[in-house]
Amino acid sequence: MLQRLRITTKFMILVLLIPFIASCSIDSANGNNSQDESSSQYKVPKYIFFFIGDGMALPQINLAQAYANIPENGYVRVGLAQLNMTQLPVTGLATTFAENRYITGSAAAGTALATGEKTTINTISKKGDHSANLKTIAEMAKEKGMRVGIVSSVSIDHATPAAFYAHEDTRKNMYNIAKQMAVANFDYYAGGYAKGDYSADTLRDIKQRMLGAGYKIVSSREDLQNAKNGEKLWAYNHTLDAEAALWYEIDREQNHIALEEFTQKGIELLDNPNGFFMMVEGGKIDWACHANDAVTAAKETIAFDKAIGRALEFYKKHPDETLIIVTADHECGGLTLGFANTGYESAFEILKHQKISAEKFADLVAEWKADKNSSFTFETALTKIKDYFGLGNAELNAKLALSEYELKLLKDAYIKTVKSKEANQSEEDLLNYSYYEPLTITTTHILNRKAGIGWTSYSHTGLPVTVFAIGQGQNYFTGYYDNTDIPKRIMSIGRLRNK
Amino acid sequence: MLQRLRITTKFMILVLLIPFIASCSIDSANGNNSQDESSSQYKVPKYIFFFIGDGMALPQINLAQAYANIPENGYVRVGLAQLNMTQLPVTGLATTFAENRYITGSAAAGTALATGEKTTINTISKKGDHSANLKTIAEMAKEKGMRVGIVSSVSIDHATPAAFYAHEDTRKNMYNIAKQMAVANFDYYAGGYAKGDYSADTLRDIKQRMLGAGYKIVSSREDLQNAKNGEKLWAYNHTLDAEAALWYEIDREQNHIALEEFTQKGIELLDNPNGFFMMVEGGKIDWACHANDAVTAAKETIAFDKAIGRALEFYKKHPDETLIIVTADHECGGLTLGFANTGYESAFEILKHQKISAEKFADLVAEWKADKNSSFTFETALTKIKDYFGLGNAELNAKLALSEYELKLLKDAYIKTVKSKEANQSEEDLLNYSYYEPLTITTTHILNRKAGIGWTSYSHTGLPVTVFAIGQGQNYFTGYYDNTDIPKRIMSIGRLRNK
Repeated sequence: MLQRLRITTKFMILVLLIPFIASCSIDSANGNNSQDESSSQYKVPKYIFFFIGDGMALPQINLAQAYANIPENGYVRVGLAQLNMTQLPVTGLATTFAENRYITGSAAAGTALATGEKTTINTISKKGDHSANLKTIAEMAKEKGMRVGIVSSVSIDHATPAAFYAHEDTRKNMYNIAKQMAVANFDYYAGGYAKGDYSADTLRDIKQRMLGAGYKIVSSREDLQNAKNGEKLWAYNHTLDAEAALWYEIDREQNHIALEEFTQKGIELLDNPNGFFMMVEGGKIDWACHANDAVTAAKETIAFDKAIGRALEFYKKHPDETLIIVTADHECGGLTLGFANTGYESAFEILKHQKISAEKFADLVAEWKADKNSSFTFETALTKIKDYFGLGNAELNAKLALSEYELKLLKDAYIKTVKSKEANQSEEDLLNYSYYEPLTITTTHILNRKAGIGWTSYSHTGLPVTVFAIGQGQNYFTGYYDNTDIPKRIMSIGRLRNK
Repeated sequence: MLQRLRITTKFMILVLLIPFIASCSIDSANGNNSQDESSSQYKVPKYIFFFIGDGMALPQINLAQAYANIPENGYVRVGLAQLNMTQLPVTGLATTFAENRYITGSAAAGTALATGEKTTINTISKKGDHSANLKTIAEMAKEKGMRVGIVSSVSIDHATPAAFYAHEDTRKNMYNIAKQMAVANFDYYAGGYAKGDYSADTLRDIKQRMLGAGYKIVSSREDLQNAKNGEKLWAYNHTLDAEAALWYEIDREQNHIALEEFTQKGIELLDNPNGFFMMVEGGKIDWACHANDAVTAAKETIAFDKAIGRALEFYKKHPDETLIIVTADHECGGLTLGFANTGYESAFEILKHQKISAEKFADLVAEWKADKNSSFTFETALTKIKDYFGLGNAELNAKLALSEYELKLLKDAYIKTVKSKEANQSEEDLLNYSYYEPLTITTTHILNRKAGIGWTSYSHTGLPVTVFAIGQGQNYFTGYYDNTDIPKRIMSIGRLRNK
């Protein structure tokens, strides 16, 4: 014990530079302080789960806890619900900055989490200057003989999943990225479909490459369930949004395959004596936060947490062979659970009245505007806002009543949405609406603010992300370190090496 | 090892209810999973430091890291500087809600951190219904024979320090609170002075009570340095702000005693064979964040971190006998390191041009307004803003140039500040200025926003706080738990009991 703490002291200044010294001090309570991996007190995990909530930093997690805590009857209850992730025994914090920018993006952060190396904005698992590829933890797992699964609620050629199987100068080359799925030869790709370069030709080519490489391709729940352990599978939902992603949880219909189902199937398909590595991304938490849509973000986070729950069920059966890590690539939206005009008060219970995502509402607004048979007046708009968000319905809850100031904000936004031919360009417009449809984003802003929720940005922010861990080697994940340290620690614990 | 992880699994659901089960799994790597305290793998710490950054959640810490990373020459450098606290080996997260409100206040949070019990807003270490006192961790330490020190940069009868030595229905009864300093009979009170009920009579009475109880009272650096180990001391700075608090670090003059000096002296005075417990509060991080003044908050956080550095120096000499915990009571201001109009870009380097706190600038604005000999025109105001914040000085840095929109915001605020007889009361005014002086808060808002920093509130928010730990029992502090669990864990590790 004495020796253990002396080691901690002696090297304290190096803790963040050489991650395993700090960790050794935790895992070497038997007095063996050697940095030799074989002396560490855990079994090399056979099953490794890596969960990445895109845009899911501490504010998003706390929002999901607050949302899940609202009683069904809509009454007020002080406190926070537990999620699966918030009950994991070990927590850490990780800084996220990219090689060339303080506020990172999903490509640079995905590369950091997949390879343990910083890179430049938009780069997919290559060095910042694009001079060489960076080997990913998933590739290392595959080379070691483990099966590998990549699951995401967004398109499979999006930045975060791409960072685990592809190497590309920019995330924008989605066709090039998707072609690398077959090259990486991983065992399971699931969730959203591919975007390619948005042309039917490229999508056909990608599909042909996958079939040629021996993949079975399924898109119905029945076909997914019928897939057998050991089959190489590309699975996506039969219906997808315009970005080839799963629908938002708030808009999901019962016959749509959920992220947790893709995760559960991955476990069944990948299980084998050599173990597996599975990355699961909750990809649309980020999108909801870009749009400053708190309810949709909360529901996305809870859906992602249910996928984590499936891994935890597996962990409980294999505690001596499993490691689960849950983290995020960055914060998004500058979300805060507190707002100027509500001060110290919160009214999360009014959030229950939002019925659809802001994105879906914006699509409806576009339809209503385009409808030649009826006029989309401001009064009509207010009725729709009342129907879909509860806003203005004081009978439902007095806190939903709209003030004169809020009505003015909605009126200004309505005029901008319906009358203006110009995109949002002035400094003030960009502050209020960014590039979003003004009426919709003003609606979610007002609902969020009334609930006591604020946003400062439509982009990512620099807040360090949380890390949750359970299982073999879990103690390596406490402390305050860099996002590149997360895969480095997983590599060391899992004996995954760049051969 | 196998046994260890089975225990973790079995009781996982209880981790947050019964803190020591999870912790045992960490500290019992020798296979002894007994919950008997005597079997845990640490020495009972003789020296316990409890650092509380008021309003210092993860965004504030990250801001201080970003600020400290700005090169002296003002150039741009991607990355974050290390603070003392960010290098501690163990981290955790703690939820903060009060018994009767999601967003807590310093009294309820201080009580949670001092006693391990939730209470109602404004209550000082009593049950939420005020039916009974709650024993504090500092009182338990005193009863055990340890010496006790309470240090704060705000007045010693403010909510956070009060929660450790006083029991009072409301934090507002500051005279009643201050009278309890002598009753608690702690060994060292230091930092700000008392406010009492703001009358000279009450302050004289408080002083008499302290002298009567055998305290030496000092307010100069020389007298502080001359105090001897074992002397019961009440020490404060010879010059204080209107709230009887230390001046902000950004405004501090060389002959003002710094928080780290009060901390260092505490270590010297309190050291003895029975050990000590010392609580140190960085109390004005919160105040700067209420005022949405990022530079002042960053400097306050760094000053607080220097006090932590003094404890770390002590720890390095006594690693087997010391435990240091660093946490916060709540977030304040809804601070985000990202802002709508700067998007993914940051310009922290322009923050270096702010020379004084917003509070001090507001005092100057009041003087300029009141000056009968000269007219405080908008042009004069812009000159002053340029002098004290760099704003509008494009020669210094092109990013400091004011846009037409920003000039309009300043003009509106100037008119409100100079011409209006009415306090800020409309919904829009409260959103833009809260109860602050409009010109000053608009100035810091604009400087912050140009740097890529946003705020959503003038009050606290609900973001869980970070916990950093080093020393004996440190491993008990990883995980995601409640703020009441922090003192419960310290009590158990330190064998501090409610007799």
